Amino acid sequence: MAQRTPVALVALDWGTSSCRAYALDADGQPLGQRNRPLGILTVGADPAAYPQALAEIAGDWLDDSPAVLACGMVGSARGWQDAGYREAPVALADLAGPSVLSVPGPVGPVHLVPGVRTVTGVMRGEETQLLGAALTGLDDDPVVLPGTHSKWAQLTGGTLTDFHTAMTGELYAMLLDRGTVSQVAAPPGEQDRAAFDGGARRGLERSAHGLLSLVFEARSRVLVGSLQPEQVRDFLSGLLIAAEITGALAWLGQRPQQVTLVGGEDLCERYRRVLGLAGISAHRPEEDLALTGLVHLARELRLLPGAPGSEQGSRRRSR
Amino acid sequence: MAQRTPVALVALDWGTSSCRAYALDADGQPLGQRNRPLGILTVGADPAAYPQALAEIAGDWLDDSPAVLACGMVGSARGWQDAGYREAPVALADLAGPSVLSVPGPVGPVHLVPGVRTVTGVMRGEETQLLGAALTGLDDDPVVLPGTHSKWAQLTGGTLTDFHTAMTGELYAMLLDRGTVSQVAAPPGEQDRAAFDGGARRGLERSAHGLLSLVFEARSRVLVGSLQPEQVRDFLSGLLIAAEITGALAWLGQRPQQVTLVGGEDLCERYRRVLGLAGISAHRPEEDLALTGLVHLARELRLLPGAPGSEQGSRRRSR
Repeated sequence: MAQRTPVALVALDWGTSSCRAYALDADGQPLGQRNRPLGILTVGADPAAYPQALAEIAGDWLDDSPAVLACGMVGSARGWQDAGYREAPVALADLAGPSVLSVPGPVGPVHLVPGVRTVTGVMRGEETQLLGAALTGLDDDPVVLPGTHSKWAQLTGGTLTDFHTAMTGELYAMLLDRGTVSQVAAPPGEQDRAAFDGGARRGLERSAHGLLSLVFEARSRVLVGSLQPEQVRDFLSGLLIAAEITGALAWLGQRPQQVTLVGGEDLCERYRRVLGLAGISAHRPEEDLALTGLVHLARELRLLPGAPGSEQGSRRRSR
Repeated sequence: MAQRTPVALVALDWGTSSCRAYALDADGQPLGQRNRPLGILTVGADPAAYPQALAEIAGDWLDDSPAVLACGMVGSARGWQDAGYREAPVALADLAGPSVLSVPGPVGPVHLVPGVRTVTGVMRGEETQLLGAALTGLDDDPVVLPGTHSKWAQLTGGTLTDFHTAMTGELYAMLLDRGTVSQVAAPPGEQDRAAFDGGARRGLERSAHGLLSLVFEARSRVLVGSLQPEQVRDFLSGLLIAAEITGALAWLGQRPQQVTLVGGEDLCERYRRVLGLAGISAHRPEEDLALTGLVHLARELRLLPGAPGSEQGSRRRSR
């Protein structure tokens, strides 16, 4: 019987609504991967609940007493413990170091990656994906991470110089959950690309009129019959993504030819489409950038053997 | 004992959350005024509930079997009955006429003023206030009606040519009711003028960055310590009003020297302050413009004697 490869590191991308967990061998190679709906909203703000949650997520992986490294909202005041923020501009490879917080876990310390802040914005979790993007050579273009709180990041030589946040996903969900726009929206159904494009074009062309006006159009158009209730969701999706893009381009101060999109395929496809309407191409890497970033930080922290940045560290970790 | 003056008209500005009711004599002079929290959200969408609601609101005024005229959301599909819309541009004095819908009320027909629509917007109730503004000679400047769904109207010689809607009040309430911005906001307290002005300046200066980003700053600034939880509401209020103003000015296509503000004193004062930061003066008339509009329409409809537009019609109505 072949000897089982022991788990050397459990790496966690532990966010608001879910936790993606990886079991890695001493070479940083994945042995397993799980996605669990145990985000910090579910686990709660009591730090005492987190060792048990980690045991549920990582399960038998912990039998090998691996090192544990986590990025994301788990390192916030509403998560396991507040791991603080590094100030931008920050060299992403330096996220490992004294600012990594260690808390007692079920089988040894759990290391929490700090977030990054500016005067007007904070991120947790994205900094590790951005490190992965920089390590993969994807940081020449602006990096866009669409989501509940989308981020647009500017990187130079592995340094995160500044970023811009847009609450696109949160506002989309909020507007369709309650209020006068949701009243005229049909339940979710088939995607209506024409409605999506219509919203996107309206958002791109009339951004100067302001989102307070453009969003409300979704309701008014149903009342006057120029939009169907089944089209409201996609019209709004196109409109909000267009508004995010228009605002982010103004923040960038220049119009890039291309951006890097990091995120789920369906959502990134929506962004690619609106970016295309704005004359900007988009590249979506196949790599798991959070994993790439976590493995790099683990090597920096000597949680894994091998030179940082080496994907194939050959030394075995002594235990 | 002096003879009591009979109520010739009950005029109603009947909106989403409340109903303002006026008892008028045959000369169109007010005999009484009431404000009741019986908006259409409370009364509901069953037309059969409205005669009873009117009896509750108008009470003993109905003993004289007056004519009844109502404007506002009561004439919507979610109110008593859908009174339809007139298409802008529309001569406001012509709102009376065949498009006024009559429904059976507790003591005779109730006349419902239609709303006004464009391709992208609808209004109900504001058209009657705008008629009042036009009759009062207040329509040389753009007329701004701040609120849940603020309206900016352009009038020329008594004709409503076009209007712009911003869901400022609704979004403000929504953002402070739930979601990640509300999580960092302290409960309502004393107004913080510095926070309000800070939000307003941010909204005026950085409108190009987009509301999806600027609103989220309210949260991020608390997390990084540059805004206090007690300041979030006023920061957001200034920011959203500034965003509305910036968008509306772009819609107007020119920067007016002055606008007319129609609405409650406290809210109009907030708008006046942000308009001032943008270099625009604001005039708020003392007149009750909805009442002025309703009296005019009542005369047009022969619900009151006297020439339309005459505030002192001398003929007594024969009954």
